Amino acid sequence: MARLALTVSYVGTRLAGWQIQARTDRPQPRTVQGELERIAERIVGAPVRLHGAGRTDSGVHAEAQVAHMDVPDHRADLDWQRAFNAGLPDDISVAAVVRVPDEFHARFDARGKTYTYRLWPERRWVPPRLAPFAWATGQLDMDAMDAAAAYLHGMHDFASFQNTGTDIVTTVRTVTRVARRHEGEAPVQPALPGAQPLAGAEETANAMAGGLRVMAWDFEADGFLKQMVRNMMGLLVAVGRGKLPPDAVPAILAARDRKTAPATAPAHGLTLTRVHY
Amino acid sequence: MARLALTVSYVGTRLAGWQIQARTDRPQPRTVQGELERIAERIVGAPVRLHGAGRTDSGVHAEAQVAHMDVPDHRADLDWQRAFNAGLPDDISVAAVVRVPDEFHARFDARGKTYTYRLWPERRWVPPRLAPFAWATGQLDMDAMDAAAAYLHGMHDFASFQNTGTDIVTTVRTVTRVARRHEGEAPVQPALPGAQPLAGAEETANAMAGGLRVMAWDFEADGFLKQMVRNMMGLLVAVGRGKLPPDAVPAILAARDRKTAPATAPAHGLTLTRVHY
Repeated sequence: MARLALTVSYVGTRLAGWQIQARTDRPQPRTVQGELERIAERIVGAPVRLHGAGRTDSGVHAEAQVAHMDVPDHRADLDWQRAFNAGLPDDISVAAVVRVPDEFHARFDARGKTYTYRLWPERRWVPPRLAPFAWATGQLDMDAMDAAAAYLHGMHDFASFQNTGTDIVTTVRTVTRVARRHEGEAPVQPALPGAQPLAGAEETANAMAGGLRVMAWDFEADGFLKQMVRNMMGLLVAVGRGKLPPDAVPAILAARDRKTAPATAPAHGLTLTRVHY
Repeated sequence: MARLALTVSYVGTRLAGWQIQARTDRPQPRTVQGELERIAERIVGAPVRLHGAGRTDSGVHAEAQVAHMDVPDHRADLDWQRAFNAGLPDDISVAAVVRVPDEFHARFDARGKTYTYRLWPERRWVPPRLAPFAWATGQLDMDAMDAAAAYLHGMHDFASFQNTGTDIVTTVRTVTRVARRHEGEAPVQPALPGAQPLAGAEETANAMAGGLRVMAWDFEADGFLKQMVRNMMGLLVAVGRGKLPPDAVPAILAARDRKTAPATAPAHGLTLTRVHY
């Protein structure tokens, strides 16, 4: 058998996440793993298991997810990228397929991952092209969020940021990066001659004039617990909205209790950006 | 009556363009104008006509289209942005609504427009998030395209770049900008330990390594003929593929004959970026 590794991009909006679901008492929802295995099986003529580096949730996107599979030697040098992309729906695309050593494991060999969570600063209007990929939070206090983010950096027990439901040994992880950056161009509002903002909309008109841009938060760690990034983002946004002071974070970490931390951020703002080996 | 001007963003993928279609012998397809008028009429209680600055084609997107409408004075100060966005489907969103002088006309007062056409340099793989917005052309000779683009700059008779079907007086237009820029971050391919590209996929593997990015071409003019931008892009891509030398452009312009110019670029790569007043 030959082991191949795929780099896969997908838009998670209409996908029930990476993983095929164990439940067999109802129709299997569309998953990335399911769509890839359907095509691999058709080509190989036998079931093929795809092992993903990260089991992204329903609605979460990926720019470069990694997975591996084993295929018969005589099928190793097929143009697998063309074969996958010819059969995949338009929300999944294989960026590359390479041969890897037989002992390579997409998940267990990963030294770490980078996730990006995107925020949009205006709740009244989100450009339709961005809406599927960014959480429209409205304006946030970025300095306060930076101060809170600093507490998340380093090795901690992140039990307060884990949703239950996975078989893991320890909830200690090492976060090596929590950093934000502006992304993309601000859509430029036309200057209309003699225009006056309508009553009640001045706030948006001002926001427009100042130019709006996505704020992308990159989270890098040796590994992430279930929904850990979305829970950290939920915390930072609560701080950014003034609902929580930045220095409340150490106590939340120490509590090791999910109920002490703010609500989980929505799935659609999250993208698996890179897996590190 | 009060005249209001809207700034509208939309993803054109599932829309039959801006304009309500005159044909009444079959069901009216989804159009931006139709969706906006449906909501305005429901609020005002009578038909409301939206006048767009640019009549974008089916499949074409807009970052900041401008339109005006007249509403009864007692309805002028309604929070129109909230009202529109609450009723619009997720592929259309109103960025701003402002009051404008009664004589303002979204189309006839426009001094010019900027359109952006996006190209993606790899045909074997397009990130699903980009696929709806960029033409996957494969690698192109950008220097040759720059040389050809220079001929399009300035005042010319663009009849060779016009698809028929509109009532216009002259096909002379003044193009003030044809410029390209990289856009967005290149998706980073993970370095997989011991990985070997598969036979037949080396070309992509190398492209991956170099990092792929969108090339955005901005076209600005005092006005555009029907499908003029897509026809200019079709020309530039033909030059970029070596099918046409850059210095063939003056003869194509002089011929004033659509049949002398290469095929029209697909709609989905085009976005109306800005209207200038």
